[in-house]
Amino acid sequence: MKKEWDTLEVLKHARHDWLNRLQLIQGNLSLNKVDRVKEIIGEIIVEARQEAQLTNLNLPQFASAQLTCNWDQHYFRLDYEVNKSSTIQHLDDKVLANWTNELFEILDASVEKFQENHLSVMIQADEEETRFFFDFSGILINTSNIIQFLEKPLNSTMSVRATAVTDEEISFEVFTIAAERV
Amino acid sequence: MKKEWDTLEVLKHARHDWLNRLQLIQGNLSLNKVDRVKEIIGEIIVEARQEAQLTNLNLPQFASAQLTCNWDQHYFRLDYEVNKSSTIQHLDDKVLANWTNELFEILDASVEKFQENHLSVMIQADEEETRFFFDFSGILINTSNIIQFLEKPLNSTMSVRATAVTDEEISFEVFTIAAERV
Repeated sequence: MKKEWDTLEVLKHARHDWLNRLQLIQGNLSLNKVDRVKEIIGEIIVEARQEAQLTNLNLPQFASAQLTCNWDQHYFRLDYEVNKSSTIQHLDDKVLANWTNELFEILDASVEKFQENHLSVMIQADEEETRFFFDFSGILINTSNIIQFLEKPLNSTMSVRATAVTDEEISFEVFTIAAERV
Repeated sequence: MKKEWDTLEVLKHARHDWLNRLQLIQGNLSLNKVDRVKEIIGEIIVEARQEAQLTNLNLPQFASAQLTCNWDQHYFRLDYEVNKSSTIQHLDDKVLANWTNELFEILDASVEKFQENHLSVMIQADEEETRFFFDFSGILINTSNIIQFLEKPLNSTMSVRATAVTDEEISFEVFTIAAERV
């Protein structure tokens, strides 16, 4: 189920994430590793830029689902990357967000808990078409649920294609059906 | 008017604030002022702790009003300090938050714009009673509105007392009437 986050909760989680980053800086500083600190700051700035790009995609519900995913108690960690970031005009944000939240639930029910389960999402938002690449790595105890879920299109314009499914890896992409026909 | 913030907006503003802090660290690091960086990190941690204390007061709407105030376009800057932080049980959060938002509006209408206008809020949450101390410093073009506003009690249990009003400073406190009778 999707959880609605209020201002204080969002701030609490954001504060926690940022304090973790700060702690990393502080730790390296206390070891006099100034160059490492500069690298870490560079990495944080890249992450923040990615977060801003995700926010600006014009898919607010989908972006929220990505940005708050690791704050929920899931049995996997999520990271995302926005590869190209044109503002998306023609996708149904709500459908995409619901589908993503359903994916998270199915993953939770299908992975071996407390393992290094990881979901990477790469968003490639071109002016002509947008593609979402998902790569899961970890340990799956049930792939049939996921396969079944990936066989359904999201709606009449968005579909899914699985490109690899094993017990330790699943790759699939969400694409617009119109774009595929070209 | 109180604005409702959504997850992406809250994250955007929080990110902006944290990146400003990071830039301060980065700037001092590039000048090799490692000791200053350590001080700055210490200050950030204190601020984050204050934010957490404000969050934990059990006054979510009031805390949200404080935490998001500087993200709105006000003609003053706000800072807050939580002096003691027992969990508050007996105050009407909604009344307090509405009153605070009304105060912000009246201040906006009463200060000279684009001056160094500053509102400090100090929250002293004891187990027996809670007091909120407000200190404004800056330039006021209209004090009568504010005086009028401060003369009204918030509700039957919370009242306001102005302790100083000039064209450049106003101090007042919100206290529980029951506590005052003791």
